[in-house]
Amino acid sequence: MTVNMEKPYVVGMDIGGTNTVFGIVDSRGNVLVSDSVKTQQYDKIDEYVDAVCKKLLPLLQQVGGAERIKGMGVGAPNGNYYNGTIEFAPNLPWKGVIPLAAMFEEKLGIPTALTNDANAAAIGEMAYGAARGLKDFIMITLGTGVGSGIVINGQLVYGHDGFAGELGHVIVNPEGRACGCGRKGCLETYCSATGVARTAREFLVQRTGPSLLRNIPAEEIVSKDVYDAAVKGDKLAQDIFEYTGTILGTALANFIAFSSPEAIILFGGLAKSGDYIMKPVQKAMEENVLKIYEGKTKLLLSQLKDADAAVLGASALGWEVRDN
Amino acid sequence: MTVNMEKPYVVGMDIGGTNTVFGIVDSRGNVLVSDSVKTQQYDKIDEYVDAVCKKLLPLLQQVGGAERIKGMGVGAPNGNYYNGTIEFAPNLPWKGVIPLAAMFEEKLGIPTALTNDANAAAIGEMAYGAARGLKDFIMITLGTGVGSGIVINGQLVYGHDGFAGELGHVIVNPEGRACGCGRKGCLETYCSATGVARTAREFLVQRTGPSLLRNIPAEEIVSKDVYDAAVKGDKLAQDIFEYTGTILGTALANFIAFSSPEAIILFGGLAKSGDYIMKPVQKAMEENVLKIYEGKTKLLLSQLKDADAAVLGASALGWEVRDN
Repeated sequence: MTVNMEKPYVVGMDIGGTNTVFGIVDSRGNVLVSDSVKTQQYDKIDEYVDAVCKKLLPLLQQVGGAERIKGMGVGAPNGNYYNGTIEFAPNLPWKGVIPLAAMFEEKLGIPTALTNDANAAAIGEMAYGAARGLKDFIMITLGTGVGSGIVINGQLVYGHDGFAGELGHVIVNPEGRACGCGRKGCLETYCSATGVARTAREFLVQRTGPSLLRNIPAEEIVSKDVYDAAVKGDKLAQDIFEYTGTILGTALANFIAFSSPEAIILFGGLAKSGDYIMKPVQKAMEENVLKIYEGKTKLLLSQLKDADAAVLGASALGWEVRDN
Repeated sequence: MTVNMEKPYVVGMDIGGTNTVFGIVDSRGNVLVSDSVKTQQYDKIDEYVDAVCKKLLPLLQQVGGAERIKGMGVGAPNGNYYNGTIEFAPNLPWKGVIPLAAMFEEKLGIPTALTNDANAAAIGEMAYGAARGLKDFIMITLGTGVGSGIVINGQLVYGHDGFAGELGHVIVNPEGRACGCGRKGCLETYCSATGVARTAREFLVQRTGPSLLRNIPAEEIVSKDVYDAAVKGDKLAQDIFEYTGTILGTALANFIAFSSPEAIILFGGLAKSGDYIMKPVQKAMEENVLKIYEGKTKLLLSQLKDADAAVLGASALGWEVRDN
C-alpha cells in the first residue's frame, strides 16, 4: 500500500444483492464516513450509478473532494477485475455485462478497480487484517454462499479470465445437494449459512431426538437459530456444526494441496460461530491433509471489523489502482 | 528465457527412482548430449553426486566447459525449490533432507535450481512446448503417480513452503482406494498408470464378460496392456479408460475453479492413450465445470519430445537460475 500525502484516502464500495454500502477509508483502515443505497431499487444501471454518486459526493466533500482520493475499489458479485465489469450476476437487477468501473470513473473522476466480493475481502485482510505480511493465503467467505479469494506470492489470483477462485463451487459430493449453479454437491450447498439451515431441516427429519430447533417452523430456520441452540447446549444443533465443519475442513485440506498457503482465513457469519464450527474444521483439515503439509497451514479468523468489513475490503483495492 | 551468448547452454537433470538422466540443452530445446546413472546404486549421496559428475564433466567438455553453462535445473521427487533440497523422498535411497542443489553447485561451479519433477515439466512446457506464451495453466503428469505443476501469472506456484501443487493427492473419493500417502481416495490411486492397472484388476473381478486382459495374470497387468487391448476393440479395456478419464475430468473441473487456467496440459504415458482417455476427460471436465468457466479452458497434450521430456523440463529451470 503506497500512501500519497496529497491523496490520503480511498473509497470502498460493496455491492450486495440487497444493499450497496460505500465509505471513505484512510490508510489505517478507519472508515471515516459511509452511506448506502438499496441495490434492488434501481432496475436501470444509470439510475443506480446516479443514486450512488448523489450520496457519495457529499461524503467526498467532507474529506476535501475527489482530488483527495487515491482510488476507488468496488466489490461485487461476478465482478471481473480485468475488465472492471459485473458479468451476468444472478442476484443483481442488471443483466449482461455492466462496465461499472468505467461508469464510476467517468462520473467521479476517480480511478476505479472492481473485483468480486471475496477477492475484495482477501485484499482487505492483507491491507488491514489477519493477512498483514502474508504472501500466500486463502480467504474463505462464509455468507449466504461460499466465496474465496486466493493470494499467491502476495498477489490475488484472477486467472486468465478474471474469474479464478470460486472454491464455493468445488464439488465435494457428486451425488450431493442441488446447487443454485445448476450442479450438485458444491461446497456452498453445505458450508454457507443457507447450507447450515438446509442441514438443520435434514437432521430434524432424519432424527427423532428433542431439539430446540423443533420449536421453529422448519422453513423459517436460519443459521443464527442453529448457533443460538448450540450455545444453549442443544445436541442436534451442535451436530449440525460438526457436520458442516467436517465438510469444510476436508475441502480445505484439498485446497492446501493446490497452493500450500501459510494460512486459511475464514470470514463471515458462520466463522463467528466460534469453536462449534472451528474445532471440527481444524480437526478435519488436519486429518485429511497430505503429510508434507501437516501442521503448516494456520486456520485463522478474519480480523476485519464486522460492520466495516465489506467497505474496508473493497477500499483496499483502491490503494492498488494505477493512476491514469 | 534470457539467452546469454557466452553461456548459451543449460544442464537438465531428472532424478527418478530408477534412473537419473542428464543432458546439455540449447535455447531451442535441443538435447545436445546426454547420459545417465542408476539412482538406486548409490546409497550414499556423496557417492551419487560423484558418479553423476564423473559422467557429466565429459559432456560439459564437449560444449566448451562449465563456463558455457547458464545454469542447471534438477527435477526430483519431493524437490523443494526454495531450499534446493530433496526432502524425505520415499522412492529415493537417501533419507531426510538432502541439499542437492548446493552439492552440485560446489562440485561443478554451475548455479543450480531444483524442483519437483512435475514443476520441472511445467517449466519445460512453457519454455519449449505446448505452454509457450501461456501465463495461466496447469500441468498434470500421469505417470506411476499423478503430479502437477501450476503456473499463475507466468510463474510457477511454489506455496509458502515450496511444496504447492500436489494435485495427485487431492482426495476425489473419501471412501476410495488406499493411497501410498496413507490416506484414501487420492486422484493418483485412479488416474496414474498404477491406478489404471488397479481398475483393470477390479473390473475383471466385478464383471463376467470376455476380455483380452483375462489372458494376462491379474497381478502382472500394466496400463500398457489395457491400452493395447483397447486398441484391439476390447470393451472392458475401453471401459477402464472411460472410468479413468471421467474421474480425471471431474477433478480437472474442480481445479479450474481454483486458478481458472487458460489450459490444462496432460503429460506422461497415460496421456498418450489418445481418444480412449482424452474423450472422457474432456467430456467430464465440460459436464462438471462451473458455468462461468464453460468452454474457456483448453485441454492439451504435452508437446515435449518423449525421450527428452524429463531432461528438457528440468533444463528449462536452468535458464531461470540467478547468476551468483
